[in-house]
Amino acid sequence: MCQLLGMNCNTPTDIGFSFAGFSKRGGLTDHHTDGFGIGFFEGRGLRLFLDDKPSAQSPVAELVRNYHIKSENVIAHIRKASQGINSLENTHPFQREMWGGYWLFAHNGQLRPSFAPDFNGKAYRPVGCTDSEQAFCYLLNRLRAQFPDRPCPNTLFDALAELCAEIRQHGMFNFILSDGRVMYAHASTLLYYITRQPPFGQAHLIDEDMAIDFAKVTTPNDRVTVITTLPLTDNETWQQFACDELMMFDHGKLVRRHRPENPVYLTQEEGLEIARKAGVSV
Amino acid sequence: MCQLLGMNCNTPTDIGFSFAGFSKRGGLTDHHTDGFGIGFFEGRGLRLFLDDKPSAQSPVAELVRNYHIKSENVIAHIRKASQGINSLENTHPFQREMWGGYWLFAHNGQLRPSFAPDFNGKAYRPVGCTDSEQAFCYLLNRLRAQFPDRPCPNTLFDALAELCAEIRQHGMFNFILSDGRVMYAHASTLLYYITRQPPFGQAHLIDEDMAIDFAKVTTPNDRVTVITTLPLTDNETWQQFACDELMMFDHGKLVRRHRPENPVYLTQEEGLEIARKAGVSV
Repeated sequence: MCQLLGMNCNTPTDIGFSFAGFSKRGGLTDHHTDGFGIGFFEGRGLRLFLDDKPSAQSPVAELVRNYHIKSENVIAHIRKASQGINSLENTHPFQREMWGGYWLFAHNGQLRPSFAPDFNGKAYRPVGCTDSEQAFCYLLNRLRAQFPDRPCPNTLFDALAELCAEIRQHGMFNFILSDGRVMYAHASTLLYYITRQPPFGQAHLIDEDMAIDFAKVTTPNDRVTVITTLPLTDNETWQQFACDELMMFDHGKLVRRHRPENPVYLTQEEGLEIARKAGVSV
Repeated sequence: MCQLLGMNCNTPTDIGFSFAGFSKRGGLTDHHTDGFGIGFFEGRGLRLFLDDKPSAQSPVAELVRNYHIKSENVIAHIRKASQGINSLENTHPFQREMWGGYWLFAHNGQLRPSFAPDFNGKAYRPVGCTDSEQAFCYLLNRLRAQFPDRPCPNTLFDALAELCAEIRQHGMFNFILSDGRVMYAHASTLLYYITRQPPFGQAHLIDEDMAIDFAKVTTPNDRVTVITTLPLTDNETWQQFACDELMMFDHGKLVRRHRPENPVYLTQEEGLEIARKAGVSV
């Protein structure tokens, strides 16, 4: 299983602390050694760093750790290949332009061969050979067919909820998606989030003996949500997504959620076991 | 005027030497201080590094200089803003996916307001506010309308030649375009190229006191073409594009050229003067 990291904030924020812990999982504290990627929205622009080296050893990850890029929307991914060889074109997040804006998508899971969209003549087509990029292109094609121009985030959320219900019939579909304004996240199995806002406290990483006092690096107006496959800190309370739940975050805040009537929450062990059984390396 | 750099080779090659000289022009030996970008095709994948800092001081440029990424197709650009504020979404090269492959485009020049394509309902739409990104999206929309699937490079070359003739009516249109297989380059004013192949010799940079003996870092089968706005070395013979000439390079070799019947070659002074008069900063 790969791991996902997302950040959505109300002010440009340095993801350095979370990325420090997260990137250790690529080759040091965990074995997601098939490359990594991280994309930062900056204004309308998008900066995407990809590397086929493990994030713990990658010079690109080192640049990201030291450069302190500030962004309101960030998506990162560390990869343990389950489909598709370890090459750059199969490295998440994937990027496309739709409606005159950039979109970024990262996936954790595995879709069965029953998910086989026809991309013939379609606007968005996969470049690599992962189920993840197929799912991303399929989502974009469907959304564009439905909306010739960008609808408001709420309308898009409803359309996305229907598409998620369709796609997750084919397998594990944990993903984070952003257009640089809001962030959408969907869980089939394991996904957590935390919203940090005043009063800010201390946080301590699980993957590295590193702590931060957020009160010292924030202003009283800051609000930051971090979304991740498995919690990054051991002294904070992370909220769990229910299975099949879709959320939308805007300016660091959870603003919409689409949750099953009888929500099911997996333990980490159960979630990892499902991934193992689905043939997703964990 | 911004400056362009392209490399097309028959074997993955490190652009480090050329980029060392080229990137000095971003803030040290020249004043292209509004950011830079460089994109490397690797297999079907594409790795694009963008920075709004001048290339001479940018940590991203330093990473590129030190990381020695090997690629068969590279496009780089240093920017002195003439249209569009200095922000990431206006930084070249621009990237899009077409026909299931990535495309990279960088432009040097200025198109007049008479160039105002309608992007309503179109597949590719600009994200930033430059004439350059408009031209790229316009090219892609026209090519996709003409070819539902990827045609062979020769067919594409002919279509591109017609589109270039149309767009350059609106102003200076020097560009480099690649799909990771071949490289297309078009000059309105100044563009040079050099093809290095056995017997390899020594080269010495203009912008930095740095020399290289290509015989020591190549094999007898290597062939590399470098394309640039102004020659990068002072002891080699660079070939000049005629005004309104389009070329196609494949595996490091010039394979097609579309040249006016009576080719005109500008001196560097004439080319820079035209740019100045067009309001393009030089």
